[in-house]
Amino acid sequence: MSSYQLFYWPGIQGRGEFVRLVLEDAGVAYDDVGRQPGGQRRILAVLEGEVAPFVFAPPVLTAGDIVIAQTAAITRFLGERHGLAPANEPGRLAAATIALTIADFVDEVHDTHHPISVAEVYDKQREPAAQRARAFRDSRLPKLVGYLERILAANDGDWLVGSAASYPDLAAFQIVEGLRYAFPHAFAKQQCGKLLALRDRVAARPRLAAYLASDRRLPFNEHGIFRRYPELDPA
Amino acid sequence: MSSYQLFYWPGIQGRGEFVRLVLEDAGVAYDDVGRQPGGQRRILAVLEGEVAPFVFAPPVLTAGDIVIAQTAAITRFLGERHGLAPANEPGRLAAATIALTIADFVDEVHDTHHPISVAEVYDKQREPAAQRARAFRDSRLPKLVGYLERILAANDGDWLVGSAASYPDLAAFQIVEGLRYAFPHAFAKQQCGKLLALRDRVAARPRLAAYLASDRRLPFNEHGIFRRYPELDPA
Repeated sequence: MSSYQLFYWPGIQGRGEFVRLVLEDAGVAYDDVGRQPGGQRRILAVLEGEVAPFVFAPPVLTAGDIVIAQTAAITRFLGERHGLAPANEPGRLAAATIALTIADFVDEVHDTHHPISVAEVYDKQREPAAQRARAFRDSRLPKLVGYLERILAANDGDWLVGSAASYPDLAAFQIVEGLRYAFPHAFAKQQCGKLLALRDRVAARPRLAAYLASDRRLPFNEHGIFRRYPELDPA
Repeated sequence: MSSYQLFYWPGIQGRGEFVRLVLEDAGVAYDDVGRQPGGQRRILAVLEGEVAPFVFAPPVLTAGDIVIAQTAAITRFLGERHGLAPANEPGRLAAATIALTIADFVDEVHDTHHPISVAEVYDKQREPAAQRARAFRDSRLPKLVGYLERILAANDGDWLVGSAASYPDLAAFQIVEGLRYAFPHAFAKQQCGKLLALRDRVAARPRLAAYLASDRRLPFNEHGIFRRYPELDPA
């Protein structure tokens, strides 16, 4: 057993992927519990509070007597432990702020296909989904992209915080990948040269490049957060 | 000028209230920038990146060279600084997890009246709001309440984490107050004796009791997160 156990749904990248990217870039061993034999059952048990009563949903990370859930909190914890966070407190809090803001946008992407209820399939909420996706493409997507571009411009460097890569950079990579998959037309219209350069810089990091080329990196699909429904992203 | 400046919209409790509760309970001085003369303009400037480029939206807290946004991150920062967080790392990460989960539910409450677009008023999205509110009342609200009850039952004590009050307890208080305001009928149907007892325990804390009785505590209204629209909470 590794020092870290990641509990996340098998079969999708989802929110767990933001955690995997940090683990992979840090080069630390982890058990991807959901993808082990019997994993689905163990992830379902998370919902019943079996990992810890204070955990509502995957992803969850355990490390000895530590249990932590919520994507942005897990990546902050790992980033600060493994050299993927700024060293000083203002930088650490800036990184935490950015990661949480990206997590909010991930929620908004999710709600483009599930604007009414997570308990119902997309087909049952297609009309409000079309409305929400339109608002996302027209208003929220440019705001997100503009936000990340603004940070990169102000930081005058290669990374979102300070002069080295940190976990929010990996999150920015992932949201670019997801948006390119789910909203290829809308995303192509964005002016975001700095963000795209950051995406390429992250993808070229040796451990991440190896991970992305491996079968541990699942493809996007229509069960995760980022889904390609052509009607939600007209050409 | 105090050591802390809180930047949040004047006129509503909103997400800023979760920060205020921690500041008030800790008994530390702060400037509520949005409620000072010219405050509205200064909060609007937050959106333009004027406090820091990496800040997307209020609430924001500044303290010397520290700038931090995102409700759950701000309350974690303040709680850990001012004796409103567990002392050990597992407890701190549990508290962070709970606060973020409550913040997610706050987002869900918001989306009951704005399921399609934050750029449009409620009146323009009444039908999907009715659908989303129904899903919230029938499914999400019991899940949130059950989650908090489960933690309290497992912790076998008066508080959500460990044996002392921490910032997630204040967040739990606030979400109870908000739900009682916005969804009085649906909330009254929940079985949550432990959560209600926690709410009362928090409200009785001397500094919070003084704050809640002061004019610094704004009333709920239909501009904030928790809104009473009777059609979204039928008797």
